[in-house]
Amino acid sequence: MIILGIDPGTLVTGYGVIETSGKSGVLQLVEYGTIESKRIATLADRLRVIFERLSAVLERTSPDAVAIESAFYHKNVQSTLKLGHARGVAMLASMLKDVPPAEYAPREIKRAVVGNGNASKDQVEFMVRSLLGLKPADKKLPDAYDALAVAITHAARCSNARRSTGRTSAKNWKQFVEANPGRIKK
Amino acid sequence: MIILGIDPGTLVTGYGVIETSGKSGVLQLVEYGTIESKRIATLADRLRVIFERLSAVLERTSPDAVAIESAFYHKNVQSTLKLGHARGVAMLASMLKDVPPAEYAPREIKRAVVGNGNASKDQVEFMVRSLLGLKPADKKLPDAYDALAVAITHAARCSNARRSTGRTSAKNWKQFVEANPGRIKK
Repeated sequence: MIILGIDPGTLVTGYGVIETSGKSGVLQLVEYGTIESKRIATLADRLRVIFERLSAVLERTSPDAVAIESAFYHKNVQSTLKLGHARGVAMLASMLKDVPPAEYAPREIKRAVVGNGNASKDQVEFMVRSLLGLKPADKKLPDAYDALAVAITHAARCSNARRSTGRTSAKNWKQFVEANPGRIKK
Repeated sequence: MIILGIDPGTLVTGYGVIETSGKSGVLQLVEYGTIESKRIATLADRLRVIFERLSAVLERTSPDAVAIESAFYHKNVQSTLKLGHARGVAMLASMLKDVPPAEYAPREIKRAVVGNGNASKDQVEFMVRSLLGLKPADKKLPDAYDALAVAITHAARCSNARRSTGRTSAKNWKQFVEANPGRIKK
């Protein structure tokens, strides 16, 4: 199963594509990147760039599923509103490829990836890099790690759905890594 | 000049298309309507419907300009966020037809249409109906009147830009109606 994770924002949108293999449970990194729109003057132009770049990723990788962080509310209402614009455009890009996006709350993502809903950004980044076998030399894109984390959360959810049929017993990726060190890409 | 006004919302999106004639300054109604998405279960599906219906209006009427009410902030941050999603999709539909949307604040719209930034919804509706020659028998769509009001505001702005070349002296449509009763469609 190919999963696209998206972390939308009007200034930077992160995305990450992973592939899960049903039998081995191993996660494979397909690609990750960021869409930078800071230097684009108007919100409308930024939205077009986000939409067009995400549509290209969807076209290129043909994901079976799309996962997106459920919006968290900024204190600043104007930032919240702008985030809504970027999320709307990201969700639309996914819908127009007939893949309804799944949404996960930040706590849910941290719990699935690190095993702790209050995990720090560094802990999430560490687990994302470990699970996907990212090497120190690989490009460092913090905004894309959040997108990869939501894709990993969706993979865990789908695996949990299978768990009820007795195929796995790990509650989150951290437990899985500890129990199966040989199945992690080095 | 053909102007499309949009009043986006996740439950109801209003739209209205008007045509202004450069010489006479008379506004002609092209079409108006609403996109109802209340009964659609998910936000992602609503966004697709809003996008597809607005894209169809843009395709059908080929506006030279698109005008949209600049977001006003709800007290409820979740409503603000959802409004952002709908606005983002509306702005994108416009951008994908290469028409960057103009934005007008609610006060600005009321001032342009009624002559008073604190005008009531009824006053705006009355002026919209008068200016566009809507008859009592015409369909009543309050959500579309707001969209028509923002289109009229854009027409007034473009006319004000011409005013500096001495072609008109009315400050807003109300003054214009009073000064030129014969130029209003009955």
